[in-house]
Amino acid sequence: MARIAFIGLGNMGRPMAGNLVKAGHTVTGFDLAEANVTAAAADGIQAAESLVAAVDGCDAAITMLPAGPQVADVFGREDGVLANAPSGTLLIDCSTIDVSTSRDVHRLAAGAGCRMVDAPVSGGVGGAEAGTLTFMVGGETEAFASAQPILAAMGKTIVHAGGAGNGQAAKICNNMVLGITMIAVSEAFALADGLGLDRQALFDISSKASGQCWSLTTYCPVPGPVPTSPANRDYQPGFTAAMMLKDLKLAQQAANISGTTTPLGAAAASLYGLFCKGGNETLDFSGIFKMIDVE
Amino acid sequence: MARIAFIGLGNMGRPMAGNLVKAGHTVTGFDLAEANVTAAAADGIQAAESLVAAVDGCDAAITMLPAGPQVADVFGREDGVLANAPSGTLLIDCSTIDVSTSRDVHRLAAGAGCRMVDAPVSGGVGGAEAGTLTFMVGGETEAFASAQPILAAMGKTIVHAGGAGNGQAAKICNNMVLGITMIAVSEAFALADGLGLDRQALFDISSKASGQCWSLTTYCPVPGPVPTSPANRDYQPGFTAAMMLKDLKLAQQAANISGTTTPLGAAAASLYGLFCKGGNETLDFSGIFKMIDVE
Amino acid sequence: MARIAFIGLGNMGRPMAGNLVKAGHTVTGFDLAEANVTAAAADGIQAAESLVAAVDGCDAAITMLPAGPQVADVFGREDGVLANAPSGTLLIDCSTIDVSTSRDVHRLAAGAGCRMVDAPVSGGVGGAEAGTLTFMVGGETEAFASAQPILAAMGKTIVHAGGAGNGQAAKICNNMVLGITMIAVSEAFALADGLGLDRQALFDISSKASGQCWSLTTYCPVPGPVPTSPANRDYQPGFTAAMMLKDLKLAQQAANISGTTTPLGAAAASLYGLFCKGGNETLDFSGIFKMIDVE
Amino acid sequence: MARIAFIGLGNMGRPMAGNLVKAGHTVTGFDLAEANVTAAAADGIQAAESLVAAVDGCDAAITMLPAGPQVADVFGREDGVLANAPSGTLLIDCSTIDVSTSRDVHRLAAGAGCRMVDAPVSGGVGGAEAGTLTFMVGGETEAFASAQPILAAMGKTIVHAGGAGNGQAAKICNNMVLGITMIAVSEAFALADGLGLDRQALFDISSKASGQCWSLTTYCPVPGPVPTSPANRDYQPGFTAAMMLKDLKLAQQAANISGTTTPLGAAAASLYGLFCKGGNETLDFSGIFKMIDVE
Repeated sequence: MARIAFIGLGNMGRPMAGNLVKAGHTVTGFDLAEANVTAAAADGIQAAESLVAAVDGCDAAITMLPAGPQVADVFGREDGVLANAPSGTLLIDCSTIDVSTSRDVHRLAAGAGCRMVDAPVSGGVGGAEAGTLTFMVGGETEAFASAQPILAAMGKTIVHAGGAGNGQAAKICNNMVLGITMIAVSEAFALADGLGLDRQALFDISSKASGQCWSLTTYCPVPGPVPTSPANRDYQPGFTAAMMLKDLKLAQQAANISGTTTPLGAAAASLYGLFCKGGNETLDFSGIFKMIDVE
Repeated sequence: MARIAFIGLGNMGRPMAGNLVKAGHTVTGFDLAEANVTAAAADGIQAAESLVAAVDGCDAAITMLPAGPQVADVFGREDGVLANAPSGTLLIDCSTIDVSTSRDVHRLAAGAGCRMVDAPVSGGVGGAEAGTLTFMVGGETEAFASAQPILAAMGKTIVHAGGAGNGQAAKICNNMVLGITMIAVSEAFALADGLGLDRQALFDISSKASGQCWSLTTYCPVPGPVPTSPANRDYQPGFTAAMMLKDLKLAQQAANISGTTTPLGAAAASLYGLFCKGGNETLDFSGIFKMIDVE
Repeated sequence: MARIAFIGLGNMGRPMAGNLVKAGHTVTGFDLAEANVTAAAADGIQAAESLVAAVDGCDAAITMLPAGPQVADVFGREDGVLANAPSGTLLIDCSTIDVSTSRDVHRLAAGAGCRMVDAPVSGGVGGAEAGTLTFMVGGETEAFASAQPILAAMGKTIVHAGGAGNGQAAKICNNMVLGITMIAVSEAFALADGLGLDRQALFDISSKASGQCWSLTTYCPVPGPVPTSPANRDYQPGFTAAMMLKDLKLAQQAANISGTTTPLGAAAASLYGLFCKGGNETLDFSGIFKMIDVE
Repeated sequence: MARIAFIGLGNMGRPMAGNLVKAGHTVTGFDLAEANVTAAAADGIQAAESLVAAVDGCDAAITMLPAGPQVADVFGREDGVLANAPSGTLLIDCSTIDVSTSRDVHRLAAGAGCRMVDAPVSGGVGGAEAGTLTFMVGGETEAFASAQPILAAMGKTIVHAGGAGNGQAAKICNNMVLGITMIAVSEAFALADGLGLDRQALFDISSKASGQCWSLTTYCPVPGPVPTSPANRDYQPGFTAAMMLKDLKLAQQAANISGTTTPLGAAAASLYGLFCKGGNETLDFSGIFKMIDVE
């Protein structure tokens, strides 16, 4: 069993760290919010008073932070991870951040003699608590191999997406498709409503035809056809509209930098932008049906 | 076995009519292009010299025509179907047309004492020849029941989508989602290319994750992951870009009339419009990847 | 002075007809809503009890109706304009309708031995009352010449846009640009807000630079820079969002039929669709700034 | 007269520096491409062998570079501007770069005891040569006042847009509107073509109506109505499509970071992305009409 530093003990980080403890690892936790550190102690996560203390003598350090700038800061600053973790430490960044920053941090990590993977997750707080997260992992094969058993304590699907930053790349490519298909399905149900076509009839037809997609058959944005979908509980998340907007903006940023043209990805980002501005940030992202529908 | 008039013996209509003959029906065919009528004789379809002759004494009349105006004309004119078919004839319109015209024709048919279903198909020329088409059917339950055994000779999936025009409604709702998801998947692969993420890796991840959709897993727009997809044969159709554009425009027309807002449906129609104008009308619709990709 | 039938005495039609009376014409008015006919009497418009009565013995007949189907009906029905107006009557359709219907009606009018122009207006109720409307006119040169003095009693700018239906074509082309530029300017001010750039500074710069447009310099969607713009009176119209949506949908319909690709026109129609669905139909169309802006 | 360092002697920089020489300033020039430095000598610009040499003893330093990273590098590196220019030097960055980097550089400049303005230009190579550029300037009032006489030697319109970075902000807000209106006008002409409305008729109407905009009346994307527009010379630039795409991407980046939703700005960036990918990067940006038009 390993000695693991866990940095970022919020809604996602705390249950993830807790699952590492359950798996027998020794986990030292740190968070800028002291209350998070204190709370995590209840799950057997040892409190560290600083980043330096957290990574002292660790075998691996995991970060779960809101965005690129925080990751760059936590890794790069003088009292941060790279300057203070033992040489050879395995670094696992589970944050969802922009590909550029992720690759910058990979380079810094290599320069500091550390192995690193980026390993953003899908599955939400529920998946974090149940230990059923999916990890999309970018990094060298050897680093991936080392990270796998640790990730396995927190999730059930662990996929190697390629080299540095490709975990992030895979996540935003996937979630860009997800955001677009959710709007597409919402438009189709709105059009069905407008034309007097029964929603269940459309579901029955498209779920077995060329319009089939996860947004329809697993996470249907209208109440009824899929009993477990958030539409049946007034769009309580699940995965919030704000999180979807964040991922769509990361995809746009990546497209912008890489010279890729993604017209529907851009349109989806605009529509989730309008939806969030309309006061719906905390709704499930499938709630965008309410903005599209005729009523 | 029934006596069936078949009007419209083009690429789709001729093999459909041929399958009716094989099933033991007596089929009399008519087409504005005399050559089509002559050719169809080889499949056992009896040539009619006029619409009037085709529907004379028939039990059922099937239409397979390019667009709404032709259907309205063939049904409504003095020497057309409604004025000359026996009272009680079962009318089956297999054309893909706008919902409004379809419902207008339903009303005229009812006024002429005929039963009617709209029954647009999916499955393409291949499906027409193999008798494996999918029919999305709109009309009264009794008319649907009468049409079902006839349709069963031409296809293998026959779904009742609701009342008059709802077969058309279901088809355009489904195909609007299809057009959008195809572009979405194309954008995701283009972004993967731009970011140095392997296409197969993205496929492996998204096909089992929330980005899963028929456009990815059954009809993948990049060569490789799905060997049977048109991308592997240089985008030979399949289902042409021109046909997708037609369906997306029907969806926009229906949205316009019904007061529905479909932003991504509209954007998809514009993108297929640009793709077709670029000289790609006869390519498979998944070829839009070539317009989106970085190269 | 002429004897003129005026059909459609709503918010626009009544003051237009009133200006014809002031100019010395004899005006007989008809409207499906009897109250409108009664009210119009106060302006010297003689009440007609039917379409037939209105056009009896007239030199010219003017229509000002909500949409294509009403125009087609009023012209085409048995007790309508074409069947009952004297041969050679000059027909002036001031309604804003789809180009196809307009051209259909032109053909019917020619068949009935009448001269016709389509002459949709811009300028709103204010322009109708003040007699300062702009007319965009489609039809034969001779018909245009005959219509001009009549139109001059109701407006101050009368432009011949070409043959049958081209008045409608010119109006929707112009208003499509208008709808797009209004959103563009709103986005620019929202971005300025987001970046801490003073709105007046942006106005001062762009009004003299390549971003100059009527939506900025004459009808500015933020309060301040242009004191007469609706933004300064809480977006009281002016020209309502519902009217803009109507014109953008007519443009999309025309693009659809004519095989034209108008991506931003389509996007603008979607955005005004969302804005109207949000309960803003009766706001001025420049109020879309409130949907776009950060707050 | 001042001693001025000029860094970046490309198509724009060289004639701008030349105009400073003509105005009597002493100009020392540097460029990474030695050939540019040599060529500039012909215009009286003294060659510097390094950044350090260029800024040695200068009163003001002007930068004209391709993008944010180059500006950040030239300012920030050890042998760069900030570390080697005399304290109190007036820094004028004429590059068009992202607002964030511009503001970062402003902060570094202030920390180094220098005054700074960002002063991106519009007017192209023609304006640079003729000394008729427009400068949109961000920075403290005092710095703006100091920069004004220097800028006046290179341009004729110099506007103070506000504090640090607001020159960049103003430019991208303006050019976002410009890119959108150019597409809007192109769509209107394409729709006019599709409907059989004469282009000149549309121009005559809209140039005096609510569709009026600079893209129509000054830079008309179809040949004919505005004889000086690039459409009349087969879309030779002018302002290239690649430059427009660059500015639209800067606008999207700024919108992304500032949390602004700009749906048409995003759509315009996608359309110029497709246009450039189609091999049209070096055409004038008004050439996008060729992608939109029916033909």
